[in-house]
Amino acid sequence: MSTVRRTALSAVREPPAPQQVETMNPSQLARRARVLEAVVEMISAGADEEMQMKEIADTSGVALGTIYRYFSSKDHLMAAALVEWTRGLEQRLRTRPSPSGSPADQLIAIIRLALRAYQRYPSFARLLIFVANSSDAYASDCYRQMGPVVYSTFDAPELDPDTREQVLTLIGALWYRELVEWANGRRPIGEVQASLERAVRFLLPD
Amino acid sequence: MSTVRRTALSAVREPPAPQQVETMNPSQLARRARVLEAVVEMISAGADEEMQMKEIADTSGVALGTIYRYFSSKDHLMAAALVEWTRGLEQRLRTRPSPSGSPADQLIAIIRLALRAYQRYPSFARLLIFVANSSDAYASDCYRQMGPVVYSTFDAPELDPDTREQVLTLIGALWYRELVEWANGRRPIGEVQASLERAVRFLLPD
Repeated sequence: MSTVRRTALSAVREPPAPQQVETMNPSQLARRARVLEAVVEMISAGADEEMQMKEIADTSGVALGTIYRYFSSKDHLMAAALVEWTRGLEQRLRTRPSPSGSPADQLIAIIRLALRAYQRYPSFARLLIFVANSSDAYASDCYRQMGPVVYSTFDAPELDPDTREQVLTLIGALWYRELVEWANGRRPIGEVQASLERAVRFLLPD
Repeated sequence: MSTVRRTALSAVREPPAPQQVETMNPSQLARRARVLEAVVEMISAGADEEMQMKEIADTSGVALGTIYRYFSSKDHLMAAALVEWTRGLEQRLRTRPSPSGSPADQLIAIIRLALRAYQRYPSFARLLIFVANSSDAYASDCYRQMGPVVYSTFDAPELDPDTREQVLTLIGALWYRELVEWANGRRPIGEVQASLERAVRFLLPD
């Protein structure tokens, strides 16, 4: 069965504006973090984007009305949770021993770690596809932050900025495409990894 | 609102096998073509994948039971209709004056023509995303045919086969990613086109 129910194209719905993170006081920030942590845990345990907001309120201990003040819609909350999970990935990348080798070796190391994370928690691959296909403006804002978060760990001063940007754009696109193939049973994870590594070696020959 | 309702990952459903095209007699082939033509027309007119099978039967004049003998599921029928529409695109590409210029110029000409077609009939961008996110085995078979259909018109004998394959893989991935961005209101069509052309020039420098 298909996973995509309806696409947007026609109209981008404008949800009510959520409270901006920059204007939150410490206890609001703590509550917001609790909500995101609860969602990340529920998704890690296999829940999908059809989880109920009521359940999130119960698990996080944050009132439903408060959740809706911080996140304009469930799409927004799901996207923010995905960014949160991706930040965790970034931190694991940062705490590794400083990566050595060519830019290609470095990028392949990042891809392997990220793929292992998605393999361990496939619900986040589903969530990524869900968020990518949301036209909610606040979810889209979160979605745009994802690439820069992961790629900030790719440190290759020998590449000129244009090359770096093009390589990351193309690998990011292939990454997404391969996750869609994997999530829909068309490609095993080993082939996904081989395809990405082949592309990296092609784009960044030694 | 998000467009993706549920992803598959867990189980690939096995629909009943449809009658294979190779075993159809001329009148069966004609009925099958009528069904696909009806779906392509309905989508061109703005219908989406939530169209009813009953409506397709009425429009094509082919009995519902017959449609289900040719197509194992609505996902399969939608995917076959997308391939049919893409074949039309391929034929338009083939009837143009023989493309001249470098491989990059040729590929950009193909991209422009295909983008114009999606811009004119945005429902097919939605349909592409729908089909890409189907784990139905027969829909997936159709989905795999799409790239080869369009790229068969890219004739660049001066490229070695590995380079040709990598370039088409990466441009195909970026193409899909950019259509998702466009379909969800995150990127105007002009930026989609500029992004693809920039990538082609990067991958195939003069």
